[in-house]
Amino acid sequence: MNVTFNPGPSQLYFTVQDHVRKAFRDGIPSLSHRSKEFESAFEKATTGLKTLLGIPSSFSIFFTGSATETWERSIQNLAEHQSVHFVNGAFSKRYFEIAQQMKRNPFKIESAPGKGFDTDYNLPNQPELIALTHNETSTGVSLPLSFIHGFREKYPEALIIVDAVSSLPYPDFDYSKIDSIFFSVQKGFGQPAGLGVWIVNERCIEKSEQLLRKGIDIGTYHNLPTFFANAKKNQTPETPNVLGIYLLGKVVEDFLRRGIKTIRSETEYKAAILYQTLKNHPLMNPFVQEQAIQSKTVIVADCGIHTERISKYLLSHDVQPGDGYGEFKKQHLRFANFPAHSKEQFELLVGYLNQIV
Amino acid sequence: MNVTFNPGPSQLYFTVQDHVRKAFRDGIPSLSHRSKEFESAFEKATTGLKTLLGIPSSFSIFFTGSATETWERSIQNLAEHQSVHFVNGAFSKRYFEIAQQMKRNPFKIESAPGKGFDTDYNLPNQPELIALTHNETSTGVSLPLSFIHGFREKYPEALIIVDAVSSLPYPDFDYSKIDSIFFSVQKGFGQPAGLGVWIVNERCIEKSEQLLRKGIDIGTYHNLPTFFANAKKNQTPETPNVLGIYLLGKVVEDFLRRGIKTIRSETEYKAAILYQTLKNHPLMNPFVQEQAIQSKTVIVADCGIHTERISKYLLSHDVQPGDGYGEFKKQHLRFANFPAHSKEQFELLVGYLNQIV
Repeated sequence: MNVTFNPGPSQLYFTVQDHVRKAFRDGIPSLSHRSKEFESAFEKATTGLKTLLGIPSSFSIFFTGSATETWERSIQNLAEHQSVHFVNGAFSKRYFEIAQQMKRNPFKIESAPGKGFDTDYNLPNQPELIALTHNETSTGVSLPLSFIHGFREKYPEALIIVDAVSSLPYPDFDYSKIDSIFFSVQKGFGQPAGLGVWIVNERCIEKSEQLLRKGIDIGTYHNLPTFFANAKKNQTPETPNVLGIYLLGKVVEDFLRRGIKTIRSETEYKAAILYQTLKNHPLMNPFVQEQAIQSKTVIVADCGIHTERISKYLLSHDVQPGDGYGEFKKQHLRFANFPAHSKEQFELLVGYLNQIV
Repeated sequence: MNVTFNPGPSQLYFTVQDHVRKAFRDGIPSLSHRSKEFESAFEKATTGLKTLLGIPSSFSIFFTGSATETWERSIQNLAEHQSVHFVNGAFSKRYFEIAQQMKRNPFKIESAPGKGFDTDYNLPNQPELIALTHNETSTGVSLPLSFIHGFREKYPEALIIVDAVSSLPYPDFDYSKIDSIFFSVQKGFGQPAGLGVWIVNERCIEKSEQLLRKGIDIGTYHNLPTFFANAKKNQTPETPNVLGIYLLGKVVEDFLRRGIKTIRSETEYKAAILYQTLKNHPLMNPFVQEQAIQSKTVIVADCGIHTERISKYLLSHDVQPGDGYGEFKKQHLRFANFPAHSKEQFELLVGYLNQIV
């Protein structure tokens, strides 16, 4: 095959190259971002996403440069005094650290890498912004949807923001229990990197307007009121990644045609055969042991001292695993399970893994 | 022909589509941004740019999402008390307004649209940051290089930053008289939009470190110290527009092969024949009358009541002019003169214009 299971930038969705070819034929890269044609590409991407993911029409969709930018902008626009973070790996930690750098006095509930969180955590009184990393890309822990959806009732005043960078479009969130969610296109949407997608409801817009009225710095061209005023006209505050927005609309259309139910059930099938293989394998184990929090979209194998050998074997068959992240570089391999990865590719991957003894 | 003279996003450089095809063949869009292959694409783009533009090796080159982002980040990282802005059109004004939004108490020297600046301006004592828009894309005024280079001697303590969004690679700046310069790739570099390029010297890094030590908010992942620490390793703080950086390296290589002298002299030839045509034309005039400040790269025609007719005539020959900007939408047409626009295309453009009487 010749496929990358690196969690991101990852395998391109198989239609992307054709869409790029058509984009060049149709002059998309030279399109003025103030033209009607751009506005329809913007509308196609945003309404398509809402349909695909079941996002209520009252939510707005904005485009940033990266999910990293969304980390910063979300703290800047949504936290005046304090954000609360659930930290269980490198990426949830980085979100927390960004809030520290921005002096928003963040509070963290911490758990060990590969672990989830107890439900009897103690949050500060009246938390303002609760930041949850749905899928910790570094270790393959996924927070259960029931855990994420449980905050609304306990903390009705808090804004709840979910980093779903490496899980969407798989999870079926209840958007009445979430105020904001974000991802970037080079993971589950199988596109070239360089575009972040930030989805917010009206409460987020109101909060940022409150901060603005209080004279708090919420940024300039990428603050929520400016995003909102532009998005109402299917426009962006700056010259954006026009090609990326066009491609997102096209890929979402492909996903809609395939059906979100099919995408979800195939994701579950592929995850099941890989976890099964890891569990029964003499040389490796799932790093995340507790089944309820095993990510379906980033599956991490604890290969210990066999890591390099397994990696080399896969590479010799043109299969590229993702390296372990950070401290786990020498003992883990990570396997993205995105819509771009077919069932056949997962069956072959599992076959290769079973050949290693 | 079928060419767009819109100043940006503009005509793609003629090699871009082939580079994109090769990028897909070589797996560039799926490349990990922490891989050696990405680091060499980063190095190729940045060292190529330095060679092309004659930028000293002590400067660093960083990648933002857009020039609009660079407006914000440059104020955030380089101005503690006050930035000074020379405002003579919509884009220089927007830069000033961003500094206002960021409460950096900006000071402006203002001139009418289509006009330049006197050299006997009065700046505040000891200006901290002087922001100059080399080429006002809205009206086609270009500041003379002698004007830009004159600030260093008068204000040796000030940082001098130049917005060269719609002029590079044409101008031959003296980088000993400038501390920072920036552009975005969808104009003179003929690429798809979605990548800003921010070039700074060591004084800028030091200034941002000073602000950081004083506890001033300089942003997080895109502050200058973080950019700098990453760029030293040919890396970026976040997952960037990998394909855009790769393409920039390729286009710069093409420009180097063609030669910057050729690019500059062709730009001057194309500008000369278009200004000549406008001057002698019964229905239009150059909007910028003073020759010393007529932009070579964005040429604005004052077409008055004939604007719509001229625009339609050009469009009927598959030639797309840029609309007038803002208040001038109904009376100007703008013509980008970038390396992507060939001499032959300009000769045809001039021919069509001469047919309209």
